[in-house]
Amino acid sequence: MKIAIAQLNPTIGDLSGNAKNILEAARKAAKEGVRLMLTPELSLCGYPPRDLLLSSEFVESMSKKLHELAQQLPTQIAVLVGTAEPNPYATSKGQKPLFNGTALLEGGKLQKIFYKRLLPTYDVFDEDRYFEPGYQTNSFTIKSDSQFKIHIGVTICEDLWNEEEFWGKRNYEINPLEDLAELGVDLIVNLSASPYTVSKQKLREAMLGHSASRYQTPIIYVNQIGGNDDLIFDGNSVAFNRTGNVVCRAKAFASDLKIIEFDEQTKDLLPTAIAPLPATEEEEIFSALVLGVRDYARKCGFSQVVLGLSGGIDSSLVAAIAAEAIGAENVLGVLMPSPYSSEHSITDAEALVKNLGIKSQKLPIGDLMKSYDRLLGPLFAGTEFGIAEENTQSRIRGNLLMAISNKFGHLLLSTGNKSEMAVGYCTLYGDMNGGLAVIADVPKTRVFSICRWLNRNREIIPNNVLIKPPSAELKPGQVDQDSLPPYEILDDILERAIHHHQSTAQIVKAGHEPAVVNKVMKLIARAEFKRKQAPPGLKITDRAFGTGWRMPIASRWLPPNPSN
Amino acid sequence: MKIAIAQLNPTIGDLSGNAKNILEAARKAAKEGVRLMLTPELSLCGYPPRDLLLSSEFVESMSKKLHELAQQLPTQIAVLVGTAEPNPYATSKGQKPLFNGTALLEGGKLQKIFYKRLLPTYDVFDEDRYFEPGYQTNSFTIKSDSQFKIHIGVTICEDLWNEEEFWGKRNYEINPLEDLAELGVDLIVNLSASPYTVSKQKLREAMLGHSASRYQTPIIYVNQIGGNDDLIFDGNSVAFNRTGNVVCRAKAFASDLKIIEFDEQTKDLLPTAIAPLPATEEEEIFSALVLGVRDYARKCGFSQVVLGLSGGIDSSLVAAIAAEAIGAENVLGVLMPSPYSSEHSITDAEALVKNLGIKSQKLPIGDLMKSYDRLLGPLFAGTEFGIAEENTQSRIRGNLLMAISNKFGHLLLSTGNKSEMAVGYCTLYGDMNGGLAVIADVPKTRVFSICRWLNRNREIIPNNVLIKPPSAELKPGQVDQDSLPPYEILDDILERAIHHHQSTAQIVKAGHEPAVVNKVMKLIARAEFKRKQAPPGLKITDRAFGTGWRMPIASRWLPPNPSN
Repeated sequence: MKIAIAQLNPTIGDLSGNAKNILEAARKAAKEGVRLMLTPELSLCGYPPRDLLLSSEFVESMSKKLHELAQQLPTQIAVLVGTAEPNPYATSKGQKPLFNGTALLEGGKLQKIFYKRLLPTYDVFDEDRYFEPGYQTNSFTIKSDSQFKIHIGVTICEDLWNEEEFWGKRNYEINPLEDLAELGVDLIVNLSASPYTVSKQKLREAMLGHSASRYQTPIIYVNQIGGNDDLIFDGNSVAFNRTGNVVCRAKAFASDLKIIEFDEQTKDLLPTAIAPLPATEEEEIFSALVLGVRDYARKCGFSQVVLGLSGGIDSSLVAAIAAEAIGAENVLGVLMPSPYSSEHSITDAEALVKNLGIKSQKLPIGDLMKSYDRLLGPLFAGTEFGIAEENTQSRIRGNLLMAISNKFGHLLLSTGNKSEMAVGYCTLYGDMNGGLAVIADVPKTRVFSICRWLNRNREIIPNNVLIKPPSAELKPGQVDQDSLPPYEILDDILERAIHHHQSTAQIVKAGHEPAVVNKVMKLIARAEFKRKQAPPGLKITDRAFGTGWRMPIASRWLPPNPSN
Repeated sequence: MKIAIAQLNPTIGDLSGNAKNILEAARKAAKEGVRLMLTPELSLCGYPPRDLLLSSEFVESMSKKLHELAQQLPTQIAVLVGTAEPNPYATSKGQKPLFNGTALLEGGKLQKIFYKRLLPTYDVFDEDRYFEPGYQTNSFTIKSDSQFKIHIGVTICEDLWNEEEFWGKRNYEINPLEDLAELGVDLIVNLSASPYTVSKQKLREAMLGHSASRYQTPIIYVNQIGGNDDLIFDGNSVAFNRTGNVVCRAKAFASDLKIIEFDEQTKDLLPTAIAPLPATEEEEIFSALVLGVRDYARKCGFSQVVLGLSGGIDSSLVAAIAAEAIGAENVLGVLMPSPYSSEHSITDAEALVKNLGIKSQKLPIGDLMKSYDRLLGPLFAGTEFGIAEENTQSRIRGNLLMAISNKFGHLLLSTGNKSEMAVGYCTLYGDMNGGLAVIADVPKTRVFSICRWLNRNREIIPNNVLIKPPSAELKPGQVDQDSLPPYEILDDILERAIHHHQSTAQIVKAGHEPAVVNKVMKLIARAEFKRKQAPPGLKITDRAFGTGWRMPIASRWLPPNPSN
């Protein structure tokens, strides 16, 4: 029996467009003799729909569209489609209003619906906000053309992420996988919308391979692909035979349609095409960010982008990502030198423009700085040049970029990295301006390594950008290291504090200076008000400063001072 | 037996400061012969601590502080203190890592700890993200000086919000109130952190009075007070006798310590001082916003604020709120007229400054506008004056205000109202700039009614501000109604769509033009990117554009077009 993985790229809320994509994939699969097609979690509305789920009009439209789709599908193919389904017992039993469901569409009708059992409510996930967990083990039986019956267990994303033997702990009280194994299904399918993080595919494959082999049951995992605001879904759908080996893998960071054969004799999946994984983490992250930019622009209706080019490494990388995402001809880089800008800030930016083949504009801001100084002069009389003046430069640039964005309908990309965002080394309403913060989850040291990877064959990021000391150039002779610890140290502290939830004592124990650790902790806490107003930043780590980071601003918590 | 309500104003994460406030209240209460003191939900760390709860260092510090506090308390008084408590079974049972608890401190020790059973996970609440629900009915027995024993049922906030008979539906499967009634407790206490919304106190009192009388059990409800980012906690702690009548009410919008007598003969609470409720919704909202501004400023370490004064009604109201919150002498209003500004925009703003007694500065922006035009001229050649030019004016003003904020350490208050925020009639990085959006949850029609209430005794908001047509004055002769439906109509549509989740068909049925409804729906959806980057806005309704509003940006959902 042929089973298809439809690795789709839905647009959130675009019920008609998403249904059309499912229909097209099903028609193509049916032509290839496919009996069952799998689509990702909530494939009809796209994941995550968030508070659209609070609109009954939205939920009703989805239900209507689902039934329409059932009637349009080719008769010979059954399709699993992700949809939100009202919970009829919500108010009588005091339950949540919806289920996160997967509908089995066949023969023009909705035949059966399965409910997600484990609802992630951590990091970027808020499923308890909307959904009641399903309480039943989900399975159905499908007949092949040769009248052979296959018993298929259905799981939705998180349902497969509670295998105690693999994790060494339980994340939820029940394990749907155990229930399905007890039931003795022939095959387990998993319909997912699993956001990308660095190297996550290796973890997924280790976990799923472990489960397939432990329960001696083949598993097909289908993931959504595409960028949805801050989240990037990497696809990488993958199938395992009952010994836990990968027998099929769909593309990373692209839509795909894969057909797998379930062998009726051996009751196992047969090997087929296995798309390779990216060779390095740098390549993987770059591809993820390219997809994130491309989809955010497309799904918001932009075909061109604009960004400021400082000649520094952050804006250089973002320009390279943008050029790859939507074409160099659609990228406008704006050089905005001030009297404090170094000579190389211009020549490096110009070299980058040339290397990438993007468009550029030069708008020197010296006169505008003087105009602000003139206007504010009487009020600021007797004060020293400081943060206010530095930030004004950054904000002038932010205004110019937004004027261009508003005038020509270009999406403004902001270029700050995660290290800056963590410690607040960025200007609110200045360089933080943008519709999308492309590398807001990429630490500075990683920005460097990605740029070195980009240059592996030829110079794309001008070499001087890679070797000069990072500087905001907001006052004469300024370099980042005047205000911050070296990035190797800063990034290690940030990694420990943010990703590993280490205490200050643990970070000090790892070899960092107590004074430096204290300073960094204070900077992180004090920059919360900036992060609150940041544009969505593409998430590539397991803890980004986005929808999964929920910190109070008016707060006085600081970890106790560590000592040596 | 004397029982005290300590209506406290904690700062999130300030464990030492919060513990000190609890200790001071307990010492004061003990002197008055109080046997038991009640404090609000999570009183030790403040509510909501959000992702601080993910730091084990934070949770450990809290536990340490709790035990310290137990030892410091006067011996004759027992105190219920809110704290987050690690769940020892988290990883073995697959449960959440913490409980939302209330600790009974007495005799120098932690005697007992009670866990919250109903965990709100909707709107601004994310409790399933952190907490495992408690599974046990919570009660303890306390002896009075006369050796009389009182059996007290303990509930935490949401635990009392699932009375089916009152709501006409269940919100959760269990009802802790029923369990306590079955147990036959003498008194139920409810330790809350219940955020303010307009008229919510009436709802609370109706619900709690109903429960007291239904179960023939007196109830003491203790609420937190204070502003924490977007949330305002109104206090209004209140006690009911067993017939469901209010016998005591603490202040609204202020810290308070109330002492109530539990009569050992009648096993009921005796009447004592009942603080009055605000006379009008306008007074109530004004008081809430004053507290929100005062606490946000104080808890973030600001003693002065700055805001732009356009001569319009929004900035006038915000200035009045700020003056009340932190003193007129600490408020700086900045007038930034452009060549498009009307004469009255200046004279009205000056009249306001005089009426309030605040400080002011005038910074005309004409020269800066010319500087931007000059710089952008070649790039914009051949284009019409439009949104780009309009927004640049707003952004120049935003820059000037931020320069003043950065230079003098003033908190910048933004002045946009909810109607504007809903439809995107505001400039990102312009008039949206600020650390706190004071009236972002107040619809324009309500802005007018609050200003009329403010003027009830004498003119505070200049009369001309109340009667002239609202205008952004970003081009000659512009008024808001060129772009938007009249505010009475707009606000009614917004109320239906946002608060009542009405479908477009329902809104049209209520008498609105289909074309207008469609337009408003589109505007709401398209402004999501602006709201994403807005400062925290003080919440006064049950659906604000803040932490409780979680919408996708790159989304294509629009309700189906309604027809007549």
